[in-house]
Parts: sequence; structure tokens; C-alpha cells
Amino acid sequence: MSRIAYVNGRYVPLREAAVHVEDRGFQFADGAYEVITVQAGHLVDAEGHLLRLARSLRELRIRWPVKPRTLHVLIREVVRRNRLVDGTAYLQVTRGTAPREFPFPKAAVPSLVITARRLDLNPVDRLARGIKVITVPDIRWKRRDIKSVSLLPQVLGKQTAVESGAFEAWQVDDDGFVTEGCSSNAWIVTREGTLVTRNANTMILNGITRQRVLKLIDDRAMAFEERPFTVDEAYGAKEAFITSATNYVLPVTAINDRPVGNGAPGILSQELRQIYLEFAGASV
Amino acid sequence: MSRIAYVNGRYVPLREAAVHVEDRGFQFADGAYEVITVQAGHLVDAEGHLLRLARSLRELRIRWPVKPRTLHVLIREVVRRNRLVDGTAYLQVTRGTAPREFPFPKAAVPSLVITARRLDLNPVDRLARGIKVITVPDIRWKRRDIKSVSLLPQVLGKQTAVESGAFEAWQVDDDGFVTEGCSSNAWIVTREGTLVTRNANTMILNGITRQRVLKLIDDRAMAFEERPFTVDEAYGAKEAFITSATNYVLPVTAINDRPVGNGAPGILSQELRQIYLEFAGASV
Repeated sequence: MSRIAYVNGRYVPLREAAVHVEDRGFQFADGAYEVITVQAGHLVDAEGHLLRLARSLRELRIRWPVKPRTLHVLIREVVRRNRLVDGTAYLQVTRGTAPREFPFPKAAVPSLVITARRLDLNPVDRLARGIKVITVPDIRWKRRDIKSVSLLPQVLGKQTAVESGAFEAWQVDDDGFVTEGCSSNAWIVTREGTLVTRNANTMILNGITRQRVLKLIDDRAMAFEERPFTVDEAYGAKEAFITSATNYVLPVTAINDRPVGNGAPGILSQELRQIYLEFAGASV
Repeated sequence: MSRIAYVNGRYVPLREAAVHVEDRGFQFADGAYEVITVQAGHLVDAEGHLLRLARSLRELRIRWPVKPRTLHVLIREVVRRNRLVDGTAYLQVTRGTAPREFPFPKAAVPSLVITARRLDLNPVDRLARGIKVITVPDIRWKRRDIKSVSLLPQVLGKQTAVESGAFEAWQVDDDGFVTEGCSSNAWIVTREGTLVTRNANTMILNGITRQRVLKLIDDRAMAFEERPFTVDEAYGAKEAFITSATNYVLPVTAINDRPVGNGAPGILSQELRQIYLEFAGASV
């Protein structure tokens, strides 16, 4: 079956899915996006993703291409037309197509693209061994709280990770504190068993899975702190893991080739993954 | 006459010019670009622009979509097919189209888009009055030396300028020094008559017009310094101006609504524009 994409009002075969060369997403990175996991054919935490999209669009002053409720319907329809069981829905909104000028065009109609694809939500090897992360300087702009398509630094960071045999790169700010991964949030578990992830301000993107895991932790009265941590603190942590929409909770077993804890996926990390899986399963 | 664009090997009507929704330029801002001025049908300083493109592609590790010499021919052909006399040629190279994953795709073929459009190279009003600039915090990433399409901060800066009745926004670093405009380099003339523009490192984009003007100044043994200057120093400057491929040399007569010098375009700024015009005219 050929894949189907939604592009500005039409469902088209993915191979023919195109946007104009003067779409501001292509020329200016002038757009926002979301990736929503599809589990058993249902969207996981769709509400959270659409709320964050609302925030990104508000901050960038891009109008909604369709009403939020309609967008939700369109995403589900793309999932349905692709007969997607487990995978991801990707949606991107840009300021639209207009002759190339930096300021906002007065008349442009926002663009909307939605695609869907399969993904293994249970990567057995990765879960058994945990993942390696490396650290790289955080060279991004100062509004990381906006989920824009201005992703070039993350592309370069991830490429560095892959070339180092790692799965993710943790970005480190000028003061030596980890901000977040290139497409995930970073977590550690202290020797005392406290869960730590960076507090969300303009320095990081407030992950939907991050927020959900925080809520699940809080519901269970588990100890946690939202604060920055250094690379050195991470080296000495009992456990480490990442959260993201597509990876759920994924144990980190090495940072810059130094084993975390005993080098195996941590107990608490695995427990949190189970807790998240229950949530994701229940939300479908 | 309908405009013509070049897209990945084909000349197409501009209205039909499209790239795939999974072009990495659209999804990741994973590409570089150049804007080359066309004066009397000829490219101004094409060599400089293609050298800078080479540098951007090298830094981003994107392959040339065609050989540099071929690219030069293609740009001229787009100009010719659009019967362009005065205006700009725009070219964008991206890492190509591939299923959405952050790391570099192994098999992607770089995308190449070239467009051309008319532009008034002699904006009489703007030259007579000079332009207003405002200042905004520089919130960009740390590799401003790469001319990438990751331009969202510049879009927001220019929009703020327009809403303030200004033509350009000068971006200011954390230490209070001007880095550059959103699509131009920033210059002042001190009370002693010394030309000052920021030294080029990763903090700014090394403008081709900036480089050319520096050379023209140097050829004439005029006094200049490449160093950062503060907003306060700019307030007290005798003159100010911007340089860019499309604006050549354009006098600045107000910064944050404070008049520069006597509030009229500066003598030296106007002289430099003439010198640059002679260069541009001779290069055609």
C-alpha cells in the first residue's frame, strides 16, 4: 500500500506530496511541528501535543491552518488512511507561501502537512542494553521552548552521536549543565533515588512525554526535582534515561562511553517505562 | 511573462515549483542559501557568493548538488529565462529528501532550487532619507557564520522592525555589542571618521558586500577597524549604514528613533555607496 499524506486540504500519495519552493517552512524555517505516537491505531497524548502546538503557533504568531478540533480529525484520518497500527503521525504548520521577504507576509495562508509512518514501539535490543549518549555543546537559539522546524543544530548533534556509536546527544549549556537531548529530554536518578530532569523554561523544549512522566511520578508520590544537572553529576548518577514521544522512556547506560551505574538499564527507568506503557495503553 | 524557477534539474513555472514535504530544507532547515544581486542582467560578485556557499556546504557537510561551475551557469540561465534586468537570484541547497530522521540520510541527493525576481536597486526615497533601525536581542544559534535557512530569529527580528516603522533590526549580543542586522551587516563611522564593522567570526555572517566594501575601503587607504561596537557607541556615531547584497550600501539615519549624526544620510556612507555602485557596474 502506498502511503498517504495530507497537504493543504488534499490527501495525496506521499511520493507526490509537495510544498511550494516559497513556502516559508522551506526558505525560513518559519513553522512549527509535532510528532505524535500512534499505538494500536490510536494517538497517544494527542491533547498535550495539540496544546503545545497552540503555544508554538501563538509564540510565532502563525494562525491555525484549520481549527484545532479539525486538525485532530485530520491527523486521525491520515493515520486511518495509512492503516497505521504502531508508529508516528507528523504534522507541520508553516506561515505559508509568499514571495521571499523576512517579515510576516500579510496575505499568506498557513500551510499544513500531515504524514504518518510505522515505527517499532518496542525496540527489544535497545531496551535490553539501554542506549549510549554523548554530550555536545548546546549551540541552539534562545527560544528552545518553541517547537520550530529550525532544527539544524539538532541535526548536527544527532549526526555526531551516530558517528560516535551513540543513539542521542545531550546538549550542554555554557555553564556545563545538560539542557536536553536533540530530540528527547534528559533524566538522571541520583544515588538517593531522586528523579531529576531540567526545569522547563526557554532553555529546553517542554516534552509532552516529559510532562506526562512527571505527572505519573507525582501521582505515585515518587521523589523528583526539576532542576539543571551537570555532566559530572550525570556521570555519577545511579541511573539515566531519556523521554520522548517516540521513545517513551528509554534507559541510558553510557554517557560519553562511561557506564551509568552498573552499565545496565536502571530499575527505576524500567519501572517508569512500564508505568508509561500502561498510561499509553489506557489512553488508546 | 510568467516567472521560471529551476528545481532539481528542471525549469518550471514558478507557480508549479515545489519540493517534497520530506525535503530536509522543509522539515529541518537543513540547507544553505545565497542571494545574488542582478544588475543590468549580470550577477554582482557571483564568485564571492559561490565561495561562501562552498563554505556553508562544507561546514554542514552537504554535497554540491551540481558542480560549482554548473551552478553558476544554471543561475545565469534562470536570470536569462526570467529576462531579469535588475533584481536578485536566489539559490537554495538542502541535504535532500529522505524519510524524516535527524541524522544525515545516507542516500539523499541534495536539492537545488533557483529563483529570480525583480528588485528596485535604486530606492530613491530610502536613499534620500536613510533608513531607521531598531535593536533587538540576538537570540540566534552560535554558528551565524553558516548561511543556513535556519532563519526564524531573523524573521522575528525583521517583523519587530517593520512593526516599529524601521527597515532593519540590529541584533545585540549578551554584552551589549551589535552583531549585525537580520539580513545585513552593521557599520558606523566614528567622530574621528573611522569606519567600524564587527569582525567576522562565528558571531556574524561574513557578508559578501561587507567583504567587498572592506576591500574597496582598503584599496583607498580609508581608515577602518573590524571590531564590535556597542549600541551606545552607535548612538554617538557620526554616521551609520548597512551593507547587504540587495541593499548595497544604505545609510542609517536613526537607531531606536534617535537620530544618527544630524539625522541625514552621512557623507561617507553616500560616498561608499557610489564607490560600491562603480564596482557593481564594472563587474557586469
